[in-house]
Amino acid sequence: MKTYLECIPCFARQAVEAVQLATPCEEKQVEFIQKLLEEISQFDLSLPPPHIGQKIHRLIKETTGNTDPYQKIKERINREALALLPHLRQKIKESDDPFEMAVRYSIAGNIMDSAAKGAIGTEEIERDILDATSPPLDKEEVAHLKEEITKAKSILFLGDNAGEIVLDRLLIEKMPREKITYVVRGAPTINDATFEDARASGITELATVIDNGSDAPGTILGDCSEDFQRRFWRSDLIISKGQGNYESLSDVRHNIFFLFKVKCHVVEKEIGLPVGSLVVKGQKYKTKGEK
Amino acid sequence: MKTYLECIPCFARQAVEAVQLATPCEEKQVEFIQKLLEEISQFDLSLPPPHIGQKIHRLIKETTGNTDPYQKIKERINREALALLPHLRQKIKESDDPFEMAVRYSIAGNIMDSAAKGAIGTEEIERDILDATSPPLDKEEVAHLKEEITKAKSILFLGDNAGEIVLDRLLIEKMPREKITYVVRGAPTINDATFEDARASGITELATVIDNGSDAPGTILGDCSEDFQRRFWRSDLIISKGQGNYESLSDVRHNIFFLFKVKCHVVEKEIGLPVGSLVVKGQKYKTKGEK
Repeated sequence: MKTYLECIPCFARQAVEAVQLATPCEEKQVEFIQKLLEEISQFDLSLPPPHIGQKIHRLIKETTGNTDPYQKIKERINREALALLPHLRQKIKESDDPFEMAVRYSIAGNIMDSAAKGAIGTEEIERDILDATSPPLDKEEVAHLKEEITKAKSILFLGDNAGEIVLDRLLIEKMPREKITYVVRGAPTINDATFEDARASGITELATVIDNGSDAPGTILGDCSEDFQRRFWRSDLIISKGQGNYESLSDVRHNIFFLFKVKCHVVEKEIGLPVGSLVVKGQKYKTKGEK
Repeated sequence: MKTYLECIPCFARQAVEAVQLATPCEEKQVEFIQKLLEEISQFDLSLPPPHIGQKIHRLIKETTGNTDPYQKIKERINREALALLPHLRQKIKESDDPFEMAVRYSIAGNIMDSAAKGAIGTEEIERDILDATSPPLDKEEVAHLKEEITKAKSILFLGDNAGEIVLDRLLIEKMPREKITYVVRGAPTINDATFEDARASGITELATVIDNGSDAPGTILGDCSEDFQRRFWRSDLIISKGQGNYESLSDVRHNIFFLFKVKCHVVEKEIGLPVGSLVVKGQKYKTKGEK
Protein backbone atom coordinates (compact mmCIF):
# COMPACT_ATOMS: atom_id res chain seq x y z
CA MET A 1 0.00 0.00 0.00
CA LYS A 2 1.25 3.47 -0.83
CA THR A 3 1.66 6.31 1.66
CA TYR A 4 -1.10 8.93 1.75
CA LEU A 5 -0.64 12.63 2.45
CA GLU A 6 -2.72 12.04 5.58
CA CYS A 7 0.11 9.80 6.88
CA ILE A 8 2.46 12.82 7.11
CA PRO A 9 0.95 14.41 10.27
CA CYS A 10 0.98 10.93 11.83
CA PHE A 11 4.73 10.67 11.18
CA ALA A 12 5.17 14.10 12.77
CA ARG A 13 3.22 12.87 15.82
CA GLN A 14 5.33 9.72 16.05
CA ALA A 15 8.49 11.82 15.79
CA VAL A 16 7.42 14.12 18.64
CA GLU A 17 6.38 11.23 20.87
CA ALA A 18 9.51 9.22 20.23
CA VAL A 19 11.84 12.18 20.77
CA GLN A 20 10.10 13.03 24.06
CA LEU A 21 10.58 9.43 25.18
CA ALA A 22 14.19 9.37 23.98
CA THR A 23 15.46 12.48 25.78
CA PRO A 24 14.14 14.70 28.60
CA CYS A 25 16.07 17.79 27.39
CA GLU A 26 13.63 20.19 25.69
CA GLU A 27 16.37 22.02 23.82
CA LYS A 28 17.54 18.76 22.26
CA GLN A 29 13.95 17.71 21.55
CA VAL A 30 13.45 20.89 19.50
CA GLU A 31 16.69 20.36 17.59
CA PHE A 32 15.82 16.71 16.84
CA ILE A 33 12.24 17.49 15.79
CA GLN A 34 13.52 20.11 13.37
CA LYS A 35 15.87 17.54 11.81
CA LEU A 36 13.07 14.96 11.68
CA LEU A 37 10.64 17.34 9.97
CA GLU A 38 13.25 17.95 7.29
CA GLU A 39 13.57 14.17 6.89
CA ILE A 40 9.78 13.75 6.77
CA SER A 41 9.56 16.51 4.14
CA GLN A 42 11.51 14.21 1.78
CA PHE A 43 8.65 11.66 1.82
CA ASP A 44 8.01 9.42 -1.20
CA LEU A 45 4.30 8.60 -1.40
CA SER A 46 4.91 5.67 -3.76
CA LEU A 47 6.47 3.63 -0.92
CA PRO A 48 4.48 1.94 1.89
CA PRO A 49 4.36 3.96 5.16
CA PRO A 50 6.81 1.66 7.07
CA HIS A 51 9.62 2.88 4.75
CA ILE A 52 9.22 6.43 6.07
CA GLY A 53 8.61 5.11 9.60
CA GLN A 54 11.89 3.20 9.43
CA LYS A 55 13.83 6.31 8.34
CA ILE A 56 12.29 8.45 11.09
CA HIS A 57 12.81 6.00 13.93
CA ARG A 58 16.33 5.18 12.78
CA LEU A 59 17.14 8.89 12.75
CA ILE A 60 15.64 9.26 16.25
CA LYS A 61 17.82 6.46 17.55
CA GLU A 62 20.92 7.92 15.83
CA THR A 63 20.41 11.54 16.87
CA THR A 64 19.27 10.94 20.45
CA GLY A 65 21.66 8.05 21.10
CA ASN A 66 18.74 6.19 22.70
CA THR A 67 18.54 2.89 20.85
CA ASP A 68 15.17 1.88 22.30
CA PRO A 69 12.97 4.84 23.38
CA TYR A 70 9.91 2.62 23.83
CA GLN A 71 11.61 0.04 26.06
CA LYS A 72 9.64 0.93 29.21
CA ILE A 73 6.33 1.10 27.33
CA LYS A 74 7.04 -2.34 25.85
CA GLU A 75 7.82 -3.79 29.27
CA ARG A 76 4.63 -2.29 30.71
CA ILE A 77 2.30 -3.53 27.96
CA ASN A 78 3.87 -6.99 28.04
CA ARG A 79 3.12 -7.11 31.76
CA GLU A 80 -0.42 -5.83 31.29
CA ALA A 81 -1.16 -8.31 28.53
CA LEU A 82 0.30 -11.18 30.59
CA ALA A 83 -2.01 -10.23 33.47
CA LEU A 84 -5.02 -10.55 31.15
CA LEU A 85 -3.95 -13.92 29.75
CA PRO A 86 -5.57 -16.35 32.27
CA HIS A 87 -8.93 -14.58 32.00
CA LEU A 88 -8.83 -14.58 28.18
CA ARG A 89 -7.78 -18.22 28.08
CA GLN A 90 -10.79 -19.07 30.25
CA LYS A 91 -13.06 -17.07 27.90
CA ILE A 92 -11.70 -19.00 24.93
CA LYS A 93 -12.32 -22.29 26.73
CA GLU A 94 -15.93 -21.37 27.48
CA SER A 95 -16.58 -20.09 23.95
CA ASP A 96 -18.70 -21.90 21.33
CA ASP A 97 -15.90 -21.36 18.82
CA PRO A 98 -12.53 -21.30 20.62
CA PHE A 99 -10.55 -20.78 17.40
CA GLU A 100 -12.56 -17.69 16.43
CA MET A 101 -12.28 -16.35 19.96
CA ALA A 102 -8.50 -16.80 19.89
CA VAL A 103 -8.39 -14.98 16.53
CA ARG A 104 -10.43 -12.14 18.08
CA TYR A 105 -8.10 -11.70 21.06
CA SER A 106 -5.01 -11.89 18.88
CA ILE A 107 -6.42 -9.12 16.66
CA ALA A 108 -7.62 -7.09 19.65
CA GLY A 109 -4.05 -7.18 20.98
CA ASN A 110 -3.10 -5.09 17.95
CA ILE A 111 -4.52 -2.05 19.79
CA MET A 112 -1.17 -1.89 21.64
CA ASP A 113 0.40 -0.01 18.73
CA SER A 114 2.36 3.13 19.59
CA ALA A 115 2.71 3.99 15.89
CA ALA A 116 -1.02 4.61 15.60
CA LYS A 117 -1.97 5.35 19.19
CA GLY A 118 1.03 6.86 20.97
CA ALA A 119 1.43 5.94 24.61
CA ILE A 120 -1.75 3.90 24.92
CA GLY A 121 -3.13 3.70 28.46
CA THR A 122 -3.78 0.68 30.64
CA GLU A 123 -7.55 1.20 30.78
CA GLU A 124 -7.90 1.54 27.01
CA ILE A 125 -5.93 -1.67 26.49
CA GLU A 126 -8.08 -3.62 28.92
CA ARG A 127 -11.38 -2.25 27.61
CA ASP A 128 -10.46 -2.83 23.97
CA ILE A 129 -9.30 -6.37 24.52
CA LEU A 130 -12.21 -7.44 26.70
CA ASP A 131 -14.57 -5.89 24.10
CA ALA A 132 -13.13 -8.05 21.33
CA THR A 133 -15.90 -10.61 21.66
CA SER A 134 -18.58 -8.37 20.16
CA PRO A 135 -17.46 -6.54 16.95
CA PRO A 136 -18.33 -8.11 13.57
CA LEU A 137 -15.73 -10.50 12.15
CA ASP A 138 -15.68 -12.09 8.70
CA LYS A 139 -16.57 -15.67 9.71
CA GLU A 140 -15.96 -16.98 6.21
CA GLU A 141 -12.39 -15.64 6.29
CA VAL A 142 -11.88 -17.12 9.77
CA ALA A 143 -13.01 -20.52 8.45
CA HIS A 144 -10.73 -20.09 5.45
CA LEU A 145 -7.80 -19.25 7.73
CA LYS A 146 -8.49 -22.35 9.83
CA GLU A 147 -8.54 -24.50 6.71
CA GLU A 148 -5.27 -23.01 5.43
CA ILE A 149 -3.64 -23.64 8.82
CA THR A 150 -4.67 -27.30 8.59
CA LYS A 151 -3.39 -27.64 5.01
CA ALA A 152 -0.11 -25.78 5.47
CA LYS A 153 3.05 -27.69 6.27
CA SER A 154 4.91 -24.54 7.37
CA ILE A 155 3.50 -21.36 8.78
CA LEU A 156 5.30 -18.05 9.28
CA PHE A 157 3.58 -15.95 11.94
CA LEU A 158 4.69 -12.30 11.62
CA GLY A 159 4.36 -10.62 15.01
CA ASP A 160 3.80 -6.91 15.37
CA ASN A 161 3.94 -5.14 18.74
CA ALA A 162 5.04 -5.82 22.30
CA GLY A 163 1.99 -6.66 24.41
CA GLU A 164 0.20 -7.87 21.29
CA ILE A 165 2.73 -10.71 21.08
CA VAL A 166 1.41 -11.99 24.44
CA LEU A 167 -2.09 -12.32 23.02
CA ASP A 168 -0.74 -14.07 19.91
CA ARG A 169 0.03 -16.94 22.29
CA LEU A 170 -3.72 -17.58 22.55
CA LEU A 171 -3.97 -18.12 18.80
CA ILE A 172 -0.78 -20.20 18.62
CA GLU A 173 -2.22 -22.43 21.35
CA LYS A 174 -5.07 -23.24 18.92
CA MET A 175 -2.67 -24.11 16.09
CA PRO A 176 -0.30 -27.06 15.41
CA ARG A 177 2.74 -25.44 17.04
CA GLU A 178 5.34 -27.58 15.31
CA LYS A 179 4.45 -25.93 11.97
CA ILE A 180 4.92 -22.39 13.25
CA THR A 181 7.85 -20.04 13.09
CA TYR A 182 7.12 -16.79 14.90
CA VAL A 183 8.89 -13.65 13.60
CA VAL A 184 9.92 -10.51 15.47
CA ARG A 185 11.74 -7.37 14.26
CA GLY A 186 15.52 -7.45 13.96
CA ALA A 187 15.97 -4.29 16.09
CA PRO A 188 13.82 -1.92 18.18
CA THR A 189 11.48 0.39 16.23
CA ILE A 190 8.59 2.14 17.97
CA ASN A 191 7.05 -0.49 20.28
CA ASP A 192 7.37 -3.34 17.79
CA ALA A 193 8.21 -6.71 19.30
CA THR A 194 11.82 -7.88 19.26
CA PHE A 195 13.38 -11.09 20.58
CA GLU A 196 13.28 -9.71 24.15
CA ASP A 197 9.50 -9.41 23.91
CA ALA A 198 9.24 -12.90 22.47
CA ARG A 199 11.00 -14.13 25.59
CA ALA A 200 9.00 -11.90 27.98
CA SER A 201 5.72 -13.03 26.43
CA GLY A 202 6.54 -16.72 26.62
CA ILE A 203 6.22 -17.20 22.84
CA THR A 204 9.72 -18.72 22.79
CA GLU A 205 8.36 -21.66 24.80
CA LEU A 206 5.59 -22.32 22.28
CA ALA A 207 7.18 -21.95 18.87
CA THR A 208 10.43 -21.39 17.03
CA VAL A 209 11.17 -17.66 17.06
CA ILE A 210 13.36 -15.84 14.55
CA ASP A 211 13.95 -12.18 13.80
CA ASN A 212 13.57 -10.69 10.35
CA GLY A 213 16.86 -8.79 10.39
CA SER A 214 15.15 -5.43 9.80
CA ASP A 215 14.37 -2.38 11.93
CA ALA A 216 11.36 -1.29 9.83
CA PRO A 217 7.99 -1.02 11.63
CA GLY A 218 6.57 -3.51 9.14
CA THR A 219 7.92 -6.22 6.85
CA ILE A 220 9.83 -4.63 3.97
CA LEU A 221 11.02 -7.82 2.30
CA GLY A 222 14.05 -6.29 0.56
CA ASP A 223 15.22 -4.93 3.92
CA CYS A 224 14.94 -8.28 5.71
CA SER A 225 17.69 -10.86 6.07
CA GLU A 226 18.19 -13.43 3.34
CA ASP A 227 17.34 -16.14 5.85
CA PHE A 228 14.03 -14.49 6.61
CA GLN A 229 13.25 -13.98 2.90
CA ARG A 230 13.95 -17.65 2.20
CA ARG A 231 11.62 -18.71 5.00
CA PHE A 232 8.98 -16.23 3.85
CA TRP A 233 8.84 -17.58 0.32
CA ARG A 234 9.16 -21.23 1.32
CA SER A 235 6.35 -21.06 3.92
CA ASP A 236 2.95 -22.36 2.81
CA LEU A 237 1.10 -19.77 4.82
CA ILE A 238 1.94 -16.35 6.25
CA ILE A 239 -0.07 -15.01 9.18
CA SER A 240 0.65 -11.30 9.26
CA LYS A 241 -0.29 -9.32 12.36
CA GLY A 242 -0.83 -5.58 12.50
CA GLN A 243 -1.17 -2.52 10.29
CA GLY A 244 2.55 -2.06 9.61
CA ASN A 245 2.88 -5.60 8.23
CA TYR A 246 -0.30 -5.08 6.19
CA GLU A 247 0.93 -1.76 4.80
CA SER A 248 4.22 -3.30 3.67
CA LEU A 249 2.88 -6.67 2.40
CA SER A 250 -0.54 -5.80 0.94
CA ASP A 251 0.86 -5.90 -2.61
CA VAL A 252 2.97 -9.05 -2.14
CA ARG A 253 1.62 -12.08 -4.00
CA HIS A 254 1.78 -14.93 -1.51
CA ASN A 255 -0.62 -16.93 0.66
CA ILE A 256 -0.97 -14.29 3.39
CA PHE A 257 -3.67 -13.75 5.99
CA PHE A 258 -3.69 -10.27 7.47
CA LEU A 259 -5.01 -9.98 11.03
CA PHE A 260 -5.21 -6.48 12.46
CA LYS A 261 -7.31 -3.74 13.93
CA VAL A 262 -8.11 -0.73 11.71
CA LYS A 263 -6.56 2.21 13.54
CA CYS A 264 -6.58 5.13 11.09
CA HIS A 265 -8.68 6.64 8.33
CA VAL A 266 -6.08 5.87 5.68
CA VAL A 267 -6.32 2.12 6.28
CA GLU A 268 -10.10 2.50 6.68
CA LYS A 269 -10.15 3.83 3.09
CA GLU A 270 -7.81 1.11 1.81
CA ILE A 271 -9.67 -1.79 3.37
CA GLY A 272 -13.23 -0.46 3.33
CA LEU A 273 -13.90 -1.12 7.03
CA PRO A 274 -14.30 1.59 9.69
CA VAL A 275 -11.67 2.48 12.32
CA GLY A 276 -11.95 0.01 15.21
CA SER A 277 -12.86 -2.96 12.97
CA LEU A 278 -11.24 -6.35 13.48
CA VAL A 279 -9.83 -7.56 10.17
CA VAL A 280 -9.11 -11.08 8.91
CA LYS A 281 -8.23 -10.77 5.26
CA GLY A 282 -6.79 -13.51 3.08
CA GLN A 283 -4.54 -12.34 0.27
CA LYS A 284 -5.41 -15.54 -1.64
CA TYR A 285 -2.47 -15.52 -4.05
CA LYS A 286 -1.24 -19.06 -4.46
CA THR A 287 2.11 -20.10 -5.84
CA LYS A 288 1.88 -21.31 -9.45
CA GLY A 289 0.82 -24.93 -9.68
CA GLU A 290 -1.11 -24.82 -6.40
CA LYS A 291 -4.88 -24.97 -6.28
CA MET B 1 0.70 30.93 25.75
CA LYS B 2 3.75 29.30 24.19
CA THR B 3 3.71 26.62 21.51
CA TYR B 4 4.23 23.03 22.64
CA LEU B 5 6.05 20.32 20.69
CA GLU B 6 2.66 18.55 20.55
CA CYS B 7 1.38 21.44 18.41
CA ILE B 8 3.76 20.50 15.57
CA PRO B 9 1.85 17.41 14.29
CA CYS B 10 -1.32 19.52 14.47
CA PHE B 11 0.27 22.12 12.16
CA ALA B 12 1.25 19.32 9.79
CA ARG B 13 -2.37 18.11 9.81
CA GLN B 14 -3.66 21.62 9.14
CA ALA B 15 -1.18 21.99 6.28
CA VAL B 16 -2.28 18.72 4.64
CA GLU B 17 -5.98 19.55 5.01
CA ALA B 18 -5.62 23.11 3.72
CA VAL B 19 -3.49 22.07 0.73
CA GLN B 20 -6.01 19.37 -0.20
CA LEU B 21 -8.78 21.96 -0.06
CA ALA B 22 -6.70 24.51 -2.00
CA THR B 23 -5.79 22.34 -5.00
CA PRO B 24 -7.01 19.01 -6.39
CA CYS B 25 -3.66 18.22 -8.11
CA GLU B 26 -1.84 15.57 -6.08
CA GLU B 27 1.54 16.41 -7.57
CA LYS B 28 1.19 20.01 -6.45
CA GLN B 29 -0.11 18.92 -3.07
CA VAL B 30 3.09 16.91 -2.51
CA GLU B 31 5.27 19.83 -3.58
CA PHE B 32 3.41 22.26 -1.32
CA ILE B 33 3.43 19.92 1.70
CA GLN B 34 7.18 19.50 1.34
CA LYS B 35 7.61 23.30 1.37
CA LEU B 36 5.26 23.61 4.34
CA LEU B 37 7.10 20.97 6.38
CA GLU B 38 10.31 22.91 5.85
CA GLU B 39 8.50 26.04 7.08
CA ILE B 40 7.05 24.18 10.07
CA SER B 41 10.52 22.84 10.91
CA GLN B 42 11.57 26.45 11.61
CA PHE B 43 9.09 26.67 14.51
CA ASP B 44 9.77 28.92 17.51
CA LEU B 45 8.20 27.43 20.63
CA SER B 46 8.43 30.73 22.52
CA LEU B 47 5.69 32.26 20.35
CA PRO B 48 1.97 31.45 20.70
CA PRO B 49 0.68 28.83 18.19
CA PRO B 50 -1.22 31.36 15.99
CA HIS B 51 2.14 32.84 14.89
CA ILE B 52 3.11 29.54 13.26
CA GLY B 53 -0.47 29.05 12.03
CA GLN B 54 -0.36 32.44 10.32
CA LYS B 55 2.92 31.60 8.54
CA ILE B 56 1.62 28.23 7.36
CA HIS B 57 -1.73 29.42 6.08
CA ARG B 58 -0.14 32.47 4.44
CA LEU B 59 2.30 30.19 2.64
CA ILE B 60 -0.56 27.92 1.55
CA LYS B 61 -2.42 30.87 0.06
CA GLU B 62 0.73 32.15 -1.66
CA THR B 63 1.92 28.82 -3.06
CA THR B 64 -1.46 27.44 -4.15
CA GLY B 65 -2.82 30.77 -5.37
CA ASN B 66 -6.07 29.94 -3.57
CA THR B 67 -6.70 32.89 -1.25
CA ASP B 68 -9.50 31.21 0.69
CA PRO B 69 -9.32 27.38 0.70
CA TYR B 70 -11.99 27.11 3.40
CA GLN B 71 -14.58 29.31 1.66
CA LYS B 72 -17.05 26.50 0.93
CA ILE B 73 -16.69 25.05 4.44
CA LYS B 74 -17.35 28.50 5.91
CA GLU B 75 -20.46 28.95 3.77
CA ARG B 76 -21.74 25.52 4.77
CA ILE B 77 -21.22 25.95 8.51
CA ASN B 78 -22.75 29.43 8.44
CA ARG B 79 -25.85 27.91 6.81
CA GLU B 80 -25.96 25.03 9.29
CA ALA B 81 -25.62 27.34 12.28
CA LEU B 82 -28.31 29.67 10.89
CA ALA B 83 -30.66 26.69 10.57
CA LEU B 84 -30.16 25.90 14.29
CA LEU B 85 -30.70 29.51 15.41
CA PRO B 86 -34.54 29.58 15.88
CA HIS B 87 -34.47 26.38 17.95
CA LEU B 88 -31.61 27.64 20.15
CA ARG B 89 -33.30 31.04 20.61
CA GLN B 90 -36.41 29.21 21.82
CA LYS B 91 -34.31 27.13 24.24
CA ILE B 92 -32.76 30.32 25.65
CA LYS B 93 -36.22 31.85 26.06
CA GLU B 94 -37.48 28.81 27.98
CA SER B 95 -34.36 28.60 30.15
CA ASP B 96 -34.18 29.54 33.85
CA ASP B 97 -31.06 31.58 33.12
CA PRO B 98 -31.21 32.91 29.55
CA PHE B 99 -27.85 34.71 29.83
CA GLU B 100 -26.02 31.54 30.92
CA MET B 101 -27.75 29.58 28.17
CA ALA B 102 -26.68 32.15 25.56
CA VAL B 103 -23.09 31.91 26.89
CA ARG B 104 -23.29 28.11 26.58
CA TYR B 105 -24.43 28.20 22.95
CA SER B 106 -21.87 30.83 22.02
CA ILE B 107 -19.10 28.65 23.49
CA ALA B 108 -20.53 25.46 21.94
CA GLY B 109 -20.35 27.20 18.55
CA ASN B 110 -16.59 27.15 18.99
CA ILE B 111 -16.66 23.49 17.96
CA MET B 112 -16.78 24.72 14.34
CA ASP B 113 -13.02 25.15 14.29
CA SER B 114 -11.15 23.69 11.33
CA ALA B 115 -7.80 24.42 13.00
CA ALA B 116 -8.51 21.86 15.72
CA LYS B 117 -11.06 19.64 14.06
CA GLY B 118 -10.48 19.69 10.29
CA ALA B 119 -13.56 19.45 8.09
CA ILE B 120 -16.05 19.03 10.90
CA GLY B 121 -19.26 17.23 9.89
CA THR B 122 -22.86 18.41 10.05
CA GLU B 123 -23.95 15.78 12.58
CA GLU B 124 -21.08 16.51 14.96
CA ILE B 125 -21.89 20.22 14.87
CA GLU B 126 -25.55 19.67 15.65
CA ARG B 127 -24.90 17.13 18.40
CA ASP B 128 -22.24 19.26 20.08
CA ILE B 129 -24.31 22.41 20.05
CA LEU B 130 -27.54 20.81 21.24
CA ASP B 131 -25.53 19.10 24.02
CA ALA B 132 -24.25 22.45 25.30
CA THR B 133 -26.91 22.64 27.99
CA SER B 134 -25.42 19.86 30.13
CA PRO B 135 -21.60 20.19 30.63
CA PRO B 136 -20.32 21.92 33.77
CA LEU B 137 -19.78 25.69 33.47
CA ASP B 138 -18.14 28.01 36.00
CA LYS B 139 -21.27 29.84 37.19
CA GLU B 140 -19.24 32.31 39.23
CA GLU B 141 -17.30 33.35 36.15
CA VAL B 142 -20.55 33.64 34.17
CA ALA B 143 -21.94 35.96 36.89
CA HIS B 144 -18.70 37.93 36.84
CA LEU B 145 -18.88 38.27 33.06
CA LYS B 146 -22.48 39.50 33.31
CA GLU B 147 -21.44 42.08 35.89
CA GLU B 148 -18.51 43.29 33.76
CA ILE B 149 -20.82 43.62 30.75
CA THR B 150 -23.16 45.83 32.81
CA LYS B 151 -20.30 47.99 34.10
CA ALA B 152 -18.41 48.35 30.81
CA LYS B 153 -19.01 51.39 28.62
CA SER B 154 -17.35 49.77 25.62
CA ILE B 155 -17.03 46.08 24.79
CA LEU B 156 -14.86 44.53 22.10
CA PHE B 157 -16.17 41.09 21.12
CA LEU B 158 -13.44 39.12 19.32
CA GLY B 159 -15.08 36.60 16.99
CA ASP B 160 -13.38 33.36 16.01
CA ASN B 161 -14.78 31.05 13.33
CA ALA B 162 -17.41 31.08 10.62
CA GLY B 163 -20.52 29.26 11.89
CA GLU B 164 -19.53 30.09 15.45
CA ILE B 165 -20.16 33.76 14.64
CA VAL B 166 -23.84 32.88 14.01
CA LEU B 167 -24.18 31.53 17.55
CA ASP B 168 -22.44 34.61 18.97
CA ARG B 169 -25.60 36.45 17.91
CA LEU B 170 -27.46 34.67 20.71
CA LEU B 171 -25.08 36.13 23.30
CA ILE B 172 -25.08 39.60 21.73
CA GLU B 173 -28.88 39.55 21.86
CA LYS B 174 -28.55 39.27 25.67
CA MET B 175 -26.13 42.22 25.87
CA PRO B 176 -26.53 46.01 25.46
CA ARG B 177 -25.74 46.06 21.75
CA GLU B 178 -24.83 49.72 21.55
CA LYS B 179 -21.69 49.05 23.64
CA ILE B 180 -20.43 46.27 21.41
CA THR B 181 -17.95 46.28 18.58
CA TYR B 182 -17.63 42.83 17.02
CA VAL B 183 -14.24 41.94 15.48
CA VAL B 184 -13.45 39.60 12.58
CA ARG B 185 -10.11 38.69 10.97
CA GLY B 186 -8.66 41.04 8.38
CA ALA B 187 -8.23 38.28 5.76
CA PRO B 188 -9.12 34.59 5.36
CA THR B 189 -7.14 32.13 7.49
CA ILE B 190 -8.39 28.57 8.02
CA ASN B 191 -12.15 28.89 8.62
CA ASP B 192 -11.87 32.01 10.79
CA ALA B 193 -14.67 34.53 10.36
CA THR B 194 -14.08 37.53 8.09
CA PHE B 195 -16.38 40.42 7.19
CA GLU B 196 -18.26 38.20 4.71
CA ASP B 197 -19.19 35.84 7.53
CA ALA B 198 -20.26 38.76 9.71
CA ARG B 199 -22.68 39.72 6.94
CA ALA B 200 -23.82 36.12 6.26
CA SER B 201 -24.44 35.53 9.98
CA GLY B 202 -26.47 38.72 10.44
CA ILE B 203 -24.05 40.09 13.07
CA THR B 204 -23.71 43.29 11.02
CA GLU B 205 -27.36 44.06 11.77
CA LEU B 206 -26.83 43.72 15.53
CA ALA B 207 -23.55 45.48 16.25
CA THR B 208 -20.77 47.56 14.77
CA VAL B 209 -18.35 45.17 13.01
CA ILE B 210 -14.69 45.89 12.31
CA ASP B 211 -11.81 43.72 11.15
CA ASN B 212 -8.52 43.49 13.01
CA GLY B 213 -6.33 43.96 9.93
CA SER B 214 -4.52 40.65 10.47
CA ASP B 215 -4.59 37.24 8.81
CA ALA B 216 -3.45 35.33 11.92
CA PRO B 217 -5.76 32.60 13.26
CA GLY B 218 -5.87 34.42 16.59
CA THR B 219 -5.27 37.97 17.83
CA ILE B 220 -1.57 38.81 17.61
CA LEU B 221 -1.79 42.41 18.76
CA GLY B 222 1.41 43.60 17.04
CA ASP B 223 0.13 42.20 13.76
CA CYS B 224 -3.25 43.96 13.98
CA SER B 225 -4.06 47.37 12.55
CA GLU B 226 -3.37 50.47 14.63
CA ASP B 227 -7.09 51.22 14.62
CA PHE B 228 -7.81 47.79 16.11
CA GLN B 229 -5.05 48.14 18.72
CA ARG B 230 -6.44 51.54 19.79
CA ARG B 231 -9.93 50.08 20.21
CA PHE B 232 -8.52 47.04 22.02
CA TRP B 233 -6.76 49.10 24.67
CA ARG B 234 -9.54 51.70 25.01
CA SER B 235 -12.30 49.10 25.48
CA ASP B 236 -13.38 48.44 29.05
CA LEU B 237 -14.00 44.78 28.40
CA ILE B 238 -12.77 42.25 25.84
CA ILE B 239 -14.85 39.14 25.16
CA SER B 240 -12.50 36.76 23.38
CA LYS B 241 -13.95 33.73 21.60
CA GLY B 242 -12.05 30.57 20.71
CA GLN B 243 -8.76 28.80 21.30
CA GLY B 244 -6.74 30.85 18.80
CA ASN B 245 -7.65 34.12 20.53
CA TYR B 246 -6.93 32.52 23.91
CA GLU B 247 -3.55 31.20 22.76
CA SER B 248 -2.49 34.63 21.50
CA LEU B 249 -3.98 36.79 24.32
CA SER B 250 -3.57 34.61 27.43
CA ASP B 251 -0.52 36.62 28.54
CA VAL B 252 -1.98 40.07 27.72
CA ARG B 253 -2.83 42.16 30.79
CA HIS B 254 -6.27 43.56 30.10
CA ASN B 255 -9.85 42.96 31.24
CA ILE B 256 -10.45 39.93 29.03
CA PHE B 257 -12.98 37.12 29.30
CA PHE B 258 -12.07 34.03 27.31
CA LEU B 259 -14.97 31.92 26.08
CA PHE B 260 -14.06 28.71 24.25
CA LYS B 261 -14.27 24.98 24.04
CA VAL B 262 -11.15 22.96 24.99
CA LYS B 263 -10.26 21.07 21.81
CA CYS B 264 -6.76 19.68 22.36
CA HIS B 265 -4.56 18.20 25.06
CA VAL B 266 -2.16 21.13 24.95
CA VAL B 267 -4.87 23.61 25.98
CA GLU B 268 -6.22 21.01 28.40
CA LYS B 269 -2.83 21.12 30.16
CA GLU B 270 -2.67 24.94 30.06
CA ILE B 271 -6.15 25.52 31.43
CA GLY B 272 -6.57 22.45 33.64
CA LEU B 273 -9.91 21.39 32.16
CA PRO B 274 -10.42 18.28 30.00
CA VAL B 275 -10.94 18.31 26.22
CA GLY B 276 -14.60 19.08 25.50
CA SER B 277 -15.01 21.47 28.45
CA LEU B 278 -16.82 24.78 28.05
CA VAL B 279 -14.58 27.56 29.36
CA VAL B 280 -15.46 31.02 30.72
CA LYS B 281 -12.27 32.45 32.14
CA GLY B 282 -11.78 36.07 33.25
CA GLN B 283 -8.24 37.42 32.89
CA LYS B 284 -9.01 39.93 35.67
CA TYR B 285 -6.22 42.40 34.92
CA LYS B 286 -7.60 45.90 35.32
CA THR B 287 -6.01 49.06 33.95
CA LYS B 288 -4.15 51.01 36.66
CA GLY B 289 -6.47 53.20 38.73
CA GLU B 290 -9.51 51.00 38.10
CA LYS B 291 -11.08 48.90 40.84
